[in-house]
Amino acid sequence: MSIITLITDFGLKDGNVGVMKGVIWGIAPDAQIVDLSHLISPQNVREAALILQRSAPYFPDSTIHMVIVDPGVGTARRPLAARMGNQYFVGPDNGIITLWLEQLEAHDRSCIFIHLNNSKYWLPDISHVFHGRDIFAPVAGYLASGVPLEEFGALIHNPIRLDFPKPRRIKGGWVCEVIHLDHFGNIATNLFINQLGGQRVATLRLKGVIIEGMAHTFGERSPGELIALFGSTGNLIVCEVNGNAAQRLKVKIGDLVEVETEG
Amino acid sequence: MSIITLITDFGLKDGNVGVMKGVIWGIAPDAQIVDLSHLISPQNVREAALILQRSAPYFPDSTIHMVIVDPGVGTARRPLAARMGNQYFVGPDNGIITLWLEQLEAHDRSCIFIHLNNSKYWLPDISHVFHGRDIFAPVAGYLASGVPLEEFGALIHNPIRLDFPKPRRIKGGWVCEVIHLDHFGNIATNLFINQLGGQRVATLRLKGVIIEGMAHTFGERSPGELIALFGSTGNLIVCEVNGNAAQRLKVKIGDLVEVETEG
Amino acid sequence: MSIITLITDFGLKDGNVGVMKGVIWGIAPDAQIVDLSHLISPQNVREAALILQRSAPYFPDSTIHMVIVDPGVGTARRPLAARMGNQYFVGPDNGIITLWLEQLEAHDRSCIFIHLNNSKYWLPDISHVFHGRDIFAPVAGYLASGVPLEEFGALIHNPIRLDFPKPRRIKGGWVCEVIHLDHFGNIATNLFINQLGGQRVATLRLKGVIIEGMAHTFGERSPGELIALFGSTGNLIVCEVNGNAAQRLKVKIGDLVEVETEG
Repeated sequence: MSIITLITDFGLKDGNVGVMKGVIWGIAPDAQIVDLSHLISPQNVREAALILQRSAPYFPDSTIHMVIVDPGVGTARRPLAARMGNQYFVGPDNGIITLWLEQLEAHDRSCIFIHLNNSKYWLPDISHVFHGRDIFAPVAGYLASGVPLEEFGALIHNPIRLDFPKPRRIKGGWVCEVIHLDHFGNIATNLFINQLGGQRVATLRLKGVIIEGMAHTFGERSPGELIALFGSTGNLIVCEVNGNAAQRLKVKIGDLVEVETEG
Repeated sequence: MSIITLITDFGLKDGNVGVMKGVIWGIAPDAQIVDLSHLISPQNVREAALILQRSAPYFPDSTIHMVIVDPGVGTARRPLAARMGNQYFVGPDNGIITLWLEQLEAHDRSCIFIHLNNSKYWLPDISHVFHGRDIFAPVAGYLASGVPLEEFGALIHNPIRLDFPKPRRIKGGWVCEVIHLDHFGNIATNLFINQLGGQRVATLRLKGVIIEGMAHTFGERSPGELIALFGSTGNLIVCEVNGNAAQRLKVKIGDLVEVETEG
Repeated sequence: MSIITLITDFGLKDGNVGVMKGVIWGIAPDAQIVDLSHLISPQNVREAALILQRSAPYFPDSTIHMVIVDPGVGTARRPLAARMGNQYFVGPDNGIITLWLEQLEAHDRSCIFIHLNNSKYWLPDISHVFHGRDIFAPVAGYLASGVPLEEFGALIHNPIRLDFPKPRRIKGGWVCEVIHLDHFGNIATNLFINQLGGQRVATLRLKGVIIEGMAHTFGERSPGELIALFGSTGNLIVCEVNGNAAQRLKVKIGDLVEVETEG
């Protein structure tokens, strides 16, 4: 039984996510389909890339991740499928895989990319605006039912990669960036614990506010207190205990965070 | 293995959708259940009818579409099940099936309607306010497990139909109506490409704005541009590239759109 | 095949719900997983308790209810699993089970509580902030695949219970409290039909408004009318026909409702 995950910017109102599941189950009736997010900000490929990279490691081998944030639908942008380590990707070739791919490459995992140009595995009628339904869902369904990856099109070696901001070393610490604001208003940065090489975070400065030291978890501090800690995927995050730090500090994606380290 | 789709106005907060799935799986443990939308505007039977009609064609034979937008729950309105072509419907008899039924009839597909009056297939206790849980979910479950449609009640021939606005021909074109605003703010009208008989759209006028000609897809125009194109189900839609046309033009359902044709 | 239900305050944007499903399916590939709610107000254990108690009775024996509203994650609060009558609970020991437990005890159903301290059934790396993924999801997965409850840790007898407000008898009636505002704006109180012992509700007073008598359902009154009725789980609720009573009356959780009875 195959697992297929979905990440889209479709929202939950219009039935389009369900329609893709109908197409998949028409081909692969046993597939377990799981929604990762359908609330990606419209056309925000970078946000989808982050959710994909954070989520994929928790899924079993052979999972197919279908990611449809696709502002270039119907243009010359290529439809893509890939073997990513022991899992699969299906979606537009627009850089969505960048962060996940970098992570796999850092662990010397091999990846194979296919330009989806074999229309045998598409729906008979292809709209200009909904390839999630017409191309990617049937491809994911056939892949889940055992059709080999190479069947879907031509091997390519140059999938699109996007530049994502990297944290920058400065004297005595780092300058990093806000890369995600979650449902709780927690503020995630692009600085990871394994980049600190054992150094401790002494202070953190964000939007004129200074936070001293690090907490381990929310419940050890008082409600309303601003704290810094390492999140569940290892990145430095800023939170308000039982509150919404992003709203309180009026933070947005791309805001800079200065981190002073010691030890 | 049967597929059961759900369309409701229940929202996602209160657990009521999940409870219906519990009832279904208690009867049909293998059913694949898919959410089409639970964000139908409260009591908006017409919006549900549209989502149902657009989605059903992408599901395999024998799929059961359960649609619970039911302002008349607990009154004399009939609970209904139907064979709709090769698929099934379960829900209140309030016109929700109208658009789908018209589409099937246009293709000479036969439909059979059953008044759900055999309480053998209901939960033992029937509330006045939640027939989705007490009547429709168990009926969908038993239907999925192979109970023949005729078992659920008496054959009827007059399901409720609602009048939906139709586009109107005028000299040199059409007057159509806005029937849906999607998650992206795309504005869908009730004029379909197959009604144009090969004519081209020259201009489109909506809320004092004039759009010249048609695009094929979003990515061929510049961000911020207003474009008209044919959507993924063949209807004429107005969009802002990478933006929200509905908010920008302050459009609402029922607003008129004038279309000038040529050729 | 086991059913696992999920109640969280995670929202639907960040992929965290999907990640837990990935962990579960990695262990129990056949589990049917159903979302009850991921829109519990952040850290609102009481709201989750109510959704759990209302939903559980509609699920089959052996269903596992996993409830992750966990402001104490990473602190000394115990991770818990329990047999609750013929079903199971997995989640933090913070009182979330209180209402369901009281209901089972009122029907003399036995419950068994386990402190999850056997790390053999956890993920290898445990974060300080996401035990839903690292502890509760794998435990739910192993429980669904048949590992006996007692394997997961030590038997305990004192799970945390919260005090929930009870309706209070007064001369000629009751004073009860608003305990839930649903997606439609219906206002639910903590007074249940079986507490009235056959007495009728004569009038109900809330936020300065008086409602006379009870309706059976929405459709028997006119749109815009405020009505009182017994909801689908037997509690007294106040609704606006085809409208939003909670917004209209500016009601919040904890507001008092005076009920005059007769007969």
